[in-house]
Amino acid sequence: MSNPSLLILPGDGIGPEVMTEVVKIIDWFGAKRGIAFDVSTDLVGGAAYDKHGTPLHDDTMARAQEVDAVLLGAVGGPRYDDLDFSVKPERGLLRLRKEMDLFANLRPAQCFDALADFSSLKKDIVAGLDIMIVRELTSGVYFGEPRGIFKEGNERVGINTQRYTESEIDRIARAAFELARKRGNKVCSMEKANVMESGILWREVVQKVHDEDYADVELSHMYADNGAMQLVRAPKQFDVIVTDNLFGDVLSDCAAMLTGSLGMLPSASLGAPMANGRPKAMYEPVHGSAPDITGQGKANPIACILSFAMALRYSFDLGDEATRVEKAVEKVLADGLRTADLLGHEGETPISTTEMGDAIVAAL
Amino acid sequence: MSNPSLLILPGDGIGPEVMTEVVKIIDWFGAKRGIAFDVSTDLVGGAAYDKHGTPLHDDTMARAQEVDAVLLGAVGGPRYDDLDFSVKPERGLLRLRKEMDLFANLRPAQCFDALADFSSLKKDIVAGLDIMIVRELTSGVYFGEPRGIFKEGNERVGINTQRYTESEIDRIARAAFELARKRGNKVCSMEKANVMESGILWREVVQKVHDEDYADVELSHMYADNGAMQLVRAPKQFDVIVTDNLFGDVLSDCAAMLTGSLGMLPSASLGAPMANGRPKAMYEPVHGSAPDITGQGKANPIACILSFAMALRYSFDLGDEATRVEKAVEKVLADGLRTADLLGHEGETPISTTEMGDAIVAAL
Ligand SMILES: CC(C)[C@H](C(=O)O)[C@@H](O)C(=O)O
Ligand SMILES: CC(C)[C@H](C(=O)O)[C@@H](O)C(=O)O
Repeated sequence: MSNPSLLILPGDGIGPEVMTEVVKIIDWFGAKRGIAFDVSTDLVGGAAYDKHGTPLHDDTMARAQEVDAVLLGAVGGPRYDDLDFSVKPERGLLRLRKEMDLFANLRPAQCFDALADFSSLKKDIVAGLDIMIVRELTSGVYFGEPRGIFKEGNERVGINTQRYTESEIDRIARAAFELARKRGNKVCSMEKANVMESGILWREVVQKVHDEDYADVELSHMYADNGAMQLVRAPKQFDVIVTDNLFGDVLSDCAAMLTGSLGMLPSASLGAPMANGRPKAMYEPVHGSAPDITGQGKANPIACILSFAMALRYSFDLGDEATRVEKAVEKVLADGLRTADLLGHEGETPISTTEMGDAIVAAL
Repeated sequence: MSNPSLLILPGDGIGPEVMTEVVKIIDWFGAKRGIAFDVSTDLVGGAAYDKHGTPLHDDTMARAQEVDAVLLGAVGGPRYDDLDFSVKPERGLLRLRKEMDLFANLRPAQCFDALADFSSLKKDIVAGLDIMIVRELTSGVYFGEPRGIFKEGNERVGINTQRYTESEIDRIARAAFELARKRGNKVCSMEKANVMESGILWREVVQKVHDEDYADVELSHMYADNGAMQLVRAPKQFDVIVTDNLFGDVLSDCAAMLTGSLGMLPSASLGAPMANGRPKAMYEPVHGSAPDITGQGKANPIACILSFAMALRYSFDLGDEATRVEKAVEKVLADGLRTADLLGHEGETPISTTEMGDAIVAAL
């Protein structure tokens, strides 16, 4: 049997820097644990545009469909700001999500003990925080038609369409309930059913899936604006939050920032099972390409490393090995090692991206 | 000349309780300052539905169009949760906004010194916070067509439409720039131009209005997900934030909660000038109808009282009198008076809604 395959797409900005550290972890698993991967690397985002004139080459897309998991760094940067919408770096990412049909975006917002001080929130509000946001990723206003800028009389109008089918809501609800069963057994579903019909259908289908197949899981519904409030007020009331693509984008970033350490947060985007039983999958850090610190050795590789840990867990059923990586990260933090983004106190000296990667390998 | 006219719509839940305290303030201005209003009162939301079978009677709508300003309490409650979408309490509120064309929703997020401790955020992050969120209120996905739940093949699909015309964006941008000039002279515009064409048009028009007529105001653009993050991370970086109806709903609630005291926050919804030069206007607290504490004398009337202060400022050009109300509120807080929602420390005793209203009148 051949090794499981990984496609690495470092992307733009700090993407390549943090991915270099992930490769060290991958290599460690091959050398020390006999868990080897067939790794290939390719371009995405601005890097792909620079070479091919498109943020995702068709060959890369095809390769992404074949591999067991994709690891992505980050896309975008000011150099590409003035590009046409159709070739912006983000389109590469969105195309991967859509064509691989990665409908379930898992975004843990977890507050690491060693870093609880680092949040802008009071320590008792966030210490021990452990939320999983399950964001629908392949539908909604991100992909709905009609969309565009049209002429109407003597002015232009910008149009996007929010749309959700019952089956799209059904499958993301199931993903959330399944996850909740392995965690705190609680799901809160967020929409604006008081204003949007798509929210009414969302609420109805989530409730139906619950009542028919997940009645053991505690389910509540919340309007998304109240959700944003409650995340700030008392985030620990939540276990799993399930929401649509656009609300998920905003609410998961809000939740991420509660932890105070964006450089720490991974994500997984999962689709349907492939022939080998593994889900289509892409893993990426929540942080962006951070052009302001690119190339200075300041980037925190932990979010990307923890994204690989999620790959071990969700794609390769290596939960224990995933935990091993997570524990190694906790250890280096407990030892006081900090990249520049994690400096809280005067007089602390940051370590570099490379040093952080090496320390985590050593802690493994 | 007749007195300026006010239409009071107490609505549901704690709406009537807090509005009773506002009426005391209004009466004080008539008796002590010779500033008299012609006040009429009517039903909205669930209260209107109970009597008329509709959350806003046509006569009430007509009256709202005639008066100088509408004061609204709150709408909604669990009793009405199962009503058809078309007669839900919220529809009354949305109809008022739409038919009065109240396109500019001003939501200050201000942290009161006496209450800085009360936020879930660290004191230094929020002390002195003073943001003005300018939310577009009469367009976007709240009102765009097509909308509804439709049959498609053998399943249903929920559809809403985000749409913005150039002139809709133009007028809300102007409102934001005008406000900024009277404040910190800084506007941050939020959208998802990296994903939504309506966001591209939004960004372009805001920039154009700026360059042509408000080049003296500092303008920046931010993706709405990053906006949510930045609000949590370092809210004091903002002065005026301008954004669309849906992002504004979520982001203004997030910003409101940063202050930790939702019971304190007013809002104004303004439209075009009427024949007498005053803008069409409605004022309401940011908090909802709070069914859990209704009828217990626990509600905080300050948000509603400060909404009346906004009416003095924006509808009646009585800025000094508005400041007088705001100072009275600050005084009672500095004196340590607290309704139940503002209790931070063990051993404090709350005062009632009525006591708070009386204390503010006394402080005037
Ligand atoms: C880069 C952008 C297209 C993307 C999104 O809006 O989904 C990002 O914000 C995210 O959350 O992954
Ligand atoms: C009650 C509801 C319709 C309303 C909205 O979504 O606009 C409320 O959340 C608000 O922000 O005023």
